[in-house]
Amino acid sequence: VKVEYINPFVTSAVSVFSTMLGCRLERGKLGLHRDAQPDYEISGTIGLSGKAVGTVVLSLDKPTALSATKAMLGERHEAINDNVIDAVGELTNMIAGAAKAKLEQFDMSVSLPSVIVGRNHVIQFPSRYPPIRIPFHCDWGQLGLVVGLAEVSPPAVAEPSYETV
Amino acid sequence: VKVEYINPFVTSAVSVFSTMLGCRLERGKLGLHRDAQPDYEISGTIGLSGKAVGTVVLSLDKPTALSATKAMLGERHEAINDNVIDAVGELTNMIAGAAKAKLEQFDMSVSLPSVIVGRNHVIQFPSRYPPIRIPFHCDWGQLGLVVGLAEVSPPAVAEPSYETV
Repeated sequence: VKVEYINPFVTSAVSVFSTMLGCRLERGKLGLHRDAQPDYEISGTIGLSGKAVGTVVLSLDKPTALSATKAMLGERHEAINDNVIDAVGELTNMIAGAAKAKLEQFDMSVSLPSVIVGRNHVIQFPSRYPPIRIPFHCDWGQLGLVVGLAEVSPPAVAEPSYETV
Repeated sequence: VKVEYINPFVTSAVSVFSTMLGCRLERGKLGLHRDAQPDYEISGTIGLSGKAVGTVVLSLDKPTALSATKAMLGERHEAINDNVIDAVGELTNMIAGAAKAKLEQFDMSVSLPSVIVGRNHVIQFPSRYPPIRIPFHCDWGQLGLVVGLAEVSPPAVAEPSYETV
């Protein structure tokens, strides 16, 4: 993934957290996401497709997910329930939606988000598409954004190098 | 999700496993995926977008994932490593790719797959888009396909009811 394609995701995450949640994100150092460290306890993922294909993961520790849900819905939940899952899915969708608008050259659209819950889950990418991991922290706790993005070569339409049957 | 939209995913899974892996899948009973049972140890996910948006999850128990990798790559791996992750990502991509071709009215394209590893991870969907879960078994073990799909209403383009910033 080229770094110039990552910045729209970073600025969108900062802007969504600020606008929607009143929460200021501090960015850590970008890294390659090949070292398979566990993600946080709850992760939203969403696909992107168009002239590039991608996946965006927003992974939150539990305190951050619960505080974000309260900021979004106005009520506090103490466990990861459907409200928290919906809030994380919606945040992921908003970040991917805002970022794709900034990458209009790829004319991408977003898929339905899904949300992974579980301690020590690890979200991996195909080895030929190593993603970039951007760690963040805020007053609530820790979170991370993982972005994999691959340009689709002109003759192909949506599957860069995968075979279809 | 309408059942008529699920059948292309079921037949594509059966066909991909048969063609690519020489493995016969037996289908179990369709169910709603709201009961949050843990998925199997390794799950491939991929997004779909177009005139409908969706997410496809292919979740495999470890024996099935290892046997599928051997059938695909010709070599046996005893742990979930990059080869197994790539194989599961590719199977997920092939199933979603074959299914979208059968749902041409939605003109969908697929995103980059990602692969979730971890015991007891649970993949959830936004509560307004309950997916369908299709359990399968084969000689190798157990697996499941989870499909969430939502038609995009004509005025919108890619985000059915999510807000973008």
